[in-house]
Amino acid sequence: MEVKAGSLTSGLKSQPAAEEKVETLYQRPGLRIERIVSTGQVSPDGHWYDQDSDEWVLVVKGSARLRIEGEAQDRELGEGDYVFLPAHCRHRVAWTRSEPPTVWLAIHLFTKC
Amino acid sequence: MEVKAGSLTSGLKSQPAAEEKVETLYQRPGLRIERIVSTGQVSPDGHWYDQDSDEWVLVVKGSARLRIEGEAQDRELGEGDYVFLPAHCRHRVAWTRSEPPTVWLAIHLFTKC
Repeated sequence: MEVKAGSLTSGLKSQPAAEEKVETLYQRPGLRIERIVSTGQVSPDGHWYDQDSDEWVLVVKGSARLRIEGEAQDRELGEGDYVFLPAHCRHRVAWTRSEPPTVWLAIHLFTKC
Repeated sequence: MEVKAGSLTSGLKSQPAAEEKVETLYQRPGLRIERIVSTGQVSPDGHWYDQDSDEWVLVVKGSARLRIEGEAQDRELGEGDYVFLPAHCRHRVAWTRSEPPTVWLAIHLFTKC
């Protein structure tokens, strides 16, 4: 029986990358698990994520600031902090730690499965 | 819009607990996300987990040893290491770090949703 395994913290570059790196770790109908490596990237000015799917997201390493539309200030996220973002909960990433990189685990939960 | 948030590493006791602590963070048909805090607990002698559901499991903090049936030795898991255990992949937890506690994130994936 095949047992897939890996490390969320392996292969991290010491230098910031130009773009966020998104890797699908597991996928099936209704669900996708991703590792996201941020090195200082933020959402573009004025851009809000407005997703059709729920998202459960965890900061594994590093730290970040997340703004939820309608909230007065950014949420500070450190290692081990998680947030459940319902579909169409508009949000943006205001800051991510660059060095060492910030590693997220994102679980995208689609309505249909 | 309600945004649930929390920390996987909050509320950890400095003393080992008698039992593993399992907390459901999110649940919907076909899926359950749990935080598990181990403080030295292992699977009982001779006991193998044999689950009807797939499980994706991550060591967030601490370390553990996992034995997959049919493998010659335990897998060593450290912070950031994950394993995908298909349903009926028999396995047992051979060791968990006690102090500080070992924190797991477990995603149980049921066939029906």
